[in-house]
Amino acid sequence: RDCLRPSIKVAGVKKSYREVIDVSWGDPHRAGVKPLSFVRQVLAACIYPQLMDGDKLMVDVKQRAQMLLRACPGGSVGSYCATAGVPEIVERVSEYITRRDGGVPSHPENIYISSGSQWALTNILKVLVNSEASPRTGVLTPVPCHSTTILSLMALGAEVVPYYLREEQGWALDVEELQRAWGSAKEVCNPVGLYVINPGNPAGYVQSRKSMQEVIRFAAEKRLFLLADEVYQDCVFGEETEFVSYKRALAEMGSPLSDTVELASFHTTSKGLMGECGLRAGYVELVNLDPAVMKHIYSLFSADSCAPVLGQFALDVMTNPPQPGDPSYPLYMKVDHFLFLIHRKAFTEFINSLPGFSCQPVEGGAFAFPRVFLPPKAIETAKELGMKPDTFYCMRLLEEAGVLSSPGSEYGQQEGTYHIRFCIMTPSEIMEEILRRLSTFHKRFMNEFS
Amino acid sequence: RDCLRPSIKVAGVKKSYREVIDVSWGDPHRAGVKPLSFVRQVLAACIYPQLMDGDKLMVDVKQRAQMLLRACPGGSVGSYCATAGVPEIVERVSEYITRRDGGVPSHPENIYISSGSQWALTNILKVLVNSEASPRTGVLTPVPCHSTTILSLMALGAEVVPYYLREEQGWALDVEELQRAWGSAKEVCNPVGLYVINPGNPAGYVQSRKSMQEVIRFAAEKRLFLLADEVYQDCVFGEETEFVSYKRALAEMGSPLSDTVELASFHTTSKGLMGECGLRAGYVELVNLDPAVMKHIYSLFSADSCAPVLGQFALDVMTNPPQPGDPSYPLYMKVDHFLFLIHRKAFTEFINSLPGFSCQPVEGGAFAFPRVFLPPKAIETAKELGMKPDTFYCMRLLEEAGVLSSPGSEYGQQEGTYHIRFCIMTPSEIMEEILRRLSTFHKRFMNEFS
Repeated sequence: RDCLRPSIKVAGVKKSYREVIDVSWGDPHRAGVKPLSFVRQVLAACIYPQLMDGDKLMVDVKQRAQMLLRACPGGSVGSYCATAGVPEIVERVSEYITRRDGGVPSHPENIYISSGSQWALTNILKVLVNSEASPRTGVLTPVPCHSTTILSLMALGAEVVPYYLREEQGWALDVEELQRAWGSAKEVCNPVGLYVINPGNPAGYVQSRKSMQEVIRFAAEKRLFLLADEVYQDCVFGEETEFVSYKRALAEMGSPLSDTVELASFHTTSKGLMGECGLRAGYVELVNLDPAVMKHIYSLFSADSCAPVLGQFALDVMTNPPQPGDPSYPLYMKVDHFLFLIHRKAFTEFINSLPGFSCQPVEGGAFAFPRVFLPPKAIETAKELGMKPDTFYCMRLLEEAGVLSSPGSEYGQQEGTYHIRFCIMTPSEIMEEILRRLSTFHKRFMNEFS
Repeated sequence: RDCLRPSIKVAGVKKSYREVIDVSWGDPHRAGVKPLSFVRQVLAACIYPQLMDGDKLMVDVKQRAQMLLRACPGGSVGSYCATAGVPEIVERVSEYITRRDGGVPSHPENIYISSGSQWALTNILKVLVNSEASPRTGVLTPVPCHSTTILSLMALGAEVVPYYLREEQGWALDVEELQRAWGSAKEVCNPVGLYVINPGNPAGYVQSRKSMQEVIRFAAEKRLFLLADEVYQDCVFGEETEFVSYKRALAEMGSPLSDTVELASFHTTSKGLMGECGLRAGYVELVNLDPAVMKHIYSLFSADSCAPVLGQFALDVMTNPPQPGDPSYPLYMKVDHFLFLIHRKAFTEFINSLPGFSCQPVEGGAFAFPRVFLPPKAIETAKELGMKPDTFYCMRLLEEAGVLSSPGSEYGQQEGTYHIRFCIMTPSEIMEEILRRLSTFHKRFMNEFS
């Protein structure tokens, strides 16, 4: 995953910038976003309950902390809990899902809280992928795609079957392309799963209900298990865009689809404005799975200990935030929601104004993934250095302007195209500085190689 | 693991006890032990740094919190860190190991912090066990043994090769028995690993240096990888007993053994008086591994995200506790160390005074594992109910006296013998209540079936 990237030392050489801005991760706090106070106050009170004796904390902070501690054996966050998660929290997550999906019922026994959503995804893939099968088990996977899922698939011995998102249509997911991918896969493997990321990462698209219905029909027809990576569901910013979960879209299509298509949906505390990556908590909800398979999944999740208890508490707050009228509500709402909304447009407009860049609108997620048209001389120079051209661009951007981004080749892209991923979930002053540095660097770079 | 056990509801029926005492886990907070204030204060300050503005927290609490936050990207526990752990903490863990081992050097690059020690063990087993090998890969494993490792071995398709600890010698690890186990294993599998638990769990033995030297020589002779589960290293209470790490024992034996025997040692924040199971952090230190294998292990640990950052902070405190002269030192030392010391003797003496019980001395760890001589009528009744006899005893102990313990059959025991595991790391008043309830129940049970 992203964490693999070694820290890059630029000390010793005089640079025009004072410090490196790291927007190469999907890690909001690293990119300068401040944690949400309500979450942190509740967690601090749970860790050190003596804090609740004074009058420093709001009454709803104390109530939440007390409620959460009551759910722990021995009243301590230091105890093990059930392997599927603290039962009270699992129940509250389930209620949240029901509310989110306009009443489509969710059942706690179908939810597993884990040490991050990727860990849950790997467990589900273990069930889906037969490492010893011949032909190999195939999973249809978008291009571009963040690398963690690809690595999990490869580690399990699965065949990664690429389907390309349509960049020129705002990175839309096109069923004809799924058909093509499935057809080509049939020759080399046995495709059993379809992995979708909505909202996208690295590409910032948000699927429409209509597109999801097409995908669901396709999955039903080909008997594919749907793996819905929905970790950016709270980060949807397009004016006419709304997040619809795959579970809701499926339920609304009615029987027989709603009773048969197998679906796993993933969410996490690491993404969006919560951004608590370091606490390690996420969950999966499973739909329409055979009871025997569910039993197997239970034992898989039980093989490890429980997810970190404090991460589970953050999940409780994420799915049950303060409500209007609660003492902490005003502070909770004082968040940079709107700044991000501005960045999204400011960034794409700005980058589209630079020669040689083209960026699709960002409707959701935390990233912009502009295409960069590199001059042939730059491509040649990169090859001479034994580097991929987009990696070369990112390296120069880091060295000369102190902006750490990540090259499209890490995510997959159409042959001969180059992209750069930027995390744009960052405070305004940092975003302004990024654009300033990028603009100066990019013009110089293009001149140098033109 | 233990977490699998469903919570047992005894509501609705009038009982002679007010609430169930749960000493079936190795989970101190669940068993009533209070968390250590210094740890909790540091974590609370890291979670909600505004707490450091006032004068409520000691200066060394604030200093530690500031130091730890400086090591986090963006200064937040909400950021991802390196997959092997926060580098500064890995370094401090390494320094701790060097101090612990009287100067035997430890290198940070050989240490991986993970989401609990069991998770690290599973990763190392993945390297050791070839799931597709024929004959199967074997790992010599003690009897009795806590169930998590057995489950991991089975999940990986390894052959669990039992070697029996000598109960009559205080559960000593006997090399002749290792020889026997290895000999019998050679017929059915390819033994590559030797798993030792020191101090023991569930049996409370602590190995002597001499015993460890014999084990190391045996491992060298048979070319076995040594897996040393040393998570109870801080819980050694026998008067003449000290904890010696396998790494130290190995180093002191000199070349060629000290340069060749492959060793992995595991530790955690979950056990002992720290007892922070819910934070999920542990580490493994690797010794004498081939660089190519180390590279593979690096990629295994990198496949998942980092361990929970707050758990890593607890690991920092565990390995670097307040020192004499530090403002928090007096409070930190005000811990029930000595009560446990008393329990250990009080429990074994008491239980040995009950007819039909026999308990070896507890020298370390958190458990007593007495043998119970069940009357034939009790064994028969259990079999009629389709239960193992020790499970039947535990069930009756729960139902009639509200004490939740765990049966020896969960850990393995010599055919025809029965044991019960009790976590004895619990406050005095709870221990007294356990002994009271156990005494009344046991006499009634023995009468009923005599």
